[in-house]
Amino acid sequence: MAFLFLSTPERAAVWGPMFEDAGERFIVGEDAVTDPAEITHLMCWLPPKDLGRYPNLKVVIGSGAGVDHMPKMPEGVTLVRTLAPGIDEMVRDWVVMATLMLHRNMPTYVQQARAGQWQSHAVPRARGTRVGIMGTGRIGALAARTLADMEFDVVGWSRSGRPVEGIQVFASDGLDDFLAQADILICLLPLTDETRGILNETLFAKLPHGARLVHAGRGAHLDMDALKQALDDGVLTSAMLDVTAPEPLPENHWAWRDPRVFITPHIAANTDAAEGARHALAVVRASRENAELPGQVDQNRGY
Amino acid sequence: MAFLFLSTPERAAVWGPMFEDAGERFIVGEDAVTDPAEITHLMCWLPPKDLGRYPNLKVVIGSGAGVDHMPKMPEGVTLVRTLAPGIDEMVRDWVVMATLMLHRNMPTYVQQARAGQWQSHAVPRARGTRVGIMGTGRIGALAARTLADMEFDVVGWSRSGRPVEGIQVFASDGLDDFLAQADILICLLPLTDETRGILNETLFAKLPHGARLVHAGRGAHLDMDALKQALDDGVLTSAMLDVTAPEPLPENHWAWRDPRVFITPHIAANTDAAEGARHALAVVRASRENAELPGQVDQNRGY
Repeated sequence: MAFLFLSTPERAAVWGPMFEDAGERFIVGEDAVTDPAEITHLMCWLPPKDLGRYPNLKVVIGSGAGVDHMPKMPEGVTLVRTLAPGIDEMVRDWVVMATLMLHRNMPTYVQQARAGQWQSHAVPRARGTRVGIMGTGRIGALAARTLADMEFDVVGWSRSGRPVEGIQVFASDGLDDFLAQADILICLLPLTDETRGILNETLFAKLPHGARLVHAGRGAHLDMDALKQALDDGVLTSAMLDVTAPEPLPENHWAWRDPRVFITPHIAANTDAAEGARHALAVVRASRENAELPGQVDQNRGY
Repeated sequence: MAFLFLSTPERAAVWGPMFEDAGERFIVGEDAVTDPAEITHLMCWLPPKDLGRYPNLKVVIGSGAGVDHMPKMPEGVTLVRTLAPGIDEMVRDWVVMATLMLHRNMPTYVQQARAGQWQSHAVPRARGTRVGIMGTGRIGALAARTLADMEFDVVGWSRSGRPVEGIQVFASDGLDDFLAQADILICLLPLTDETRGILNETLFAKLPHGARLVHAGRGAHLDMDALKQALDDGVLTSAMLDVTAPEPLPENHWAWRDPRVFITPHIAANTDAAEGARHALAVVRASRENAELPGQVDQNRGY
């Protein structure tokens, strides 16, 4: 039983001692594998092409919070995504920041500053501003709680419609009703066949006119051309994106310099190395006990 | 007994019916005063030069949350500042936004976006980031609670050092200890003789090197030249200002286009007209009952 680590040397320097302390065999890089049959667990961003090389592989841990970029696992191999409280909090912080920036007209004020223009606009209140969160998993629930504490009127939308403490959550078939009351729309969905391209012209048209978009899902959720059209038509007022299509966004892309759009380069979160290692060790222990693995992905559902 | 209203026609249109419903005599503008002796209450941003014209004046209500711009009141006239839950929440929202924007390196990302540059930097966590709030009155306490809920390590500083739910508050003489642990410094102080110019070179030097400044107090708290020097020397990393000296900031001022500085034109809050009227009516009732007036200013203390 050995753990194969396929990530950066900086992270290996944190993980190695923690696995040693836990008495777990830890191998860094495929070149260091002498007996492929001993590899039972593997951690990576993207797995090696030939997973068949490891006949006893049981678990692949993706190093991110999402696993949409992962290929289908071979028979008998369980896919796990990284769970780390730090990721949830970092994304929540970015989402709250982005929501406030659009709510409080920062696109306008940043543009005015470039022109040295001191001009105030009406100050909107959080109370009475309706925020709709697509995706109410761990991160969405955390963001919902903070925004509701700040008096925003928060609703959610998820496949199941399962309520999240104090927040009304619409189920799949309630999408139109959900959208109709989202002055600020936040996308935190996992990327699946069902959600790919969901942020498009049809969806934007169902929002209140002049809505704002906060996007921290995946680039492939968003039709960037439809975003530009919606901004030009006044259907959307502004947008803040941490993910784009493609990534990295080319230097000459229109969105970089559009004053209605703020872009950050996929930095809503990164995984703290120690937290990632703690999660991986919990996965190893759980798989040894045949318990459910923390972060286990339903590969039919896609997240 | 009559209430003299010296503000905009838009606000008068909201206040008038509310005073009428409450059975209070309401006069809009000095030109409409036929008997100066009936004026007992007056609401304004700045009072008329000759308050002596109103021999029975008892209360002046300043239309803002601060009254530092107010002259000394004549003997027997009580000064009141406007209290409105909306103001507190709006300023809290701006402060939380500004704190997150500096914490999450938005000055760098906005600058990179202008150049079409997709480059990520380490993602800092709120947990372990120390936020110091100068001024822990109603607004400071509200901001402290939200930031602490987001896992920032929050401490406060106030004249009295009176603790605020769960937050350690340093008293006046603990300023240096307070500053030494403020990775992000938030100024929400009232402007008084003691706080004028407090954000200066000496103070900046006591912060952790590379600290960030969030300023929603008053322009006269801040030495703008010292801010520039501190940014140039790396003593401060970035700043977000809702107030400046002077206001409005001249079009050609260095701070408008410095990529390390975000400026908004004194829009952290404005008073909702109906909330202002409700507060004014509460002041009228309290003064009729000789009770303490909500928002009453200690004119020796200055707030």
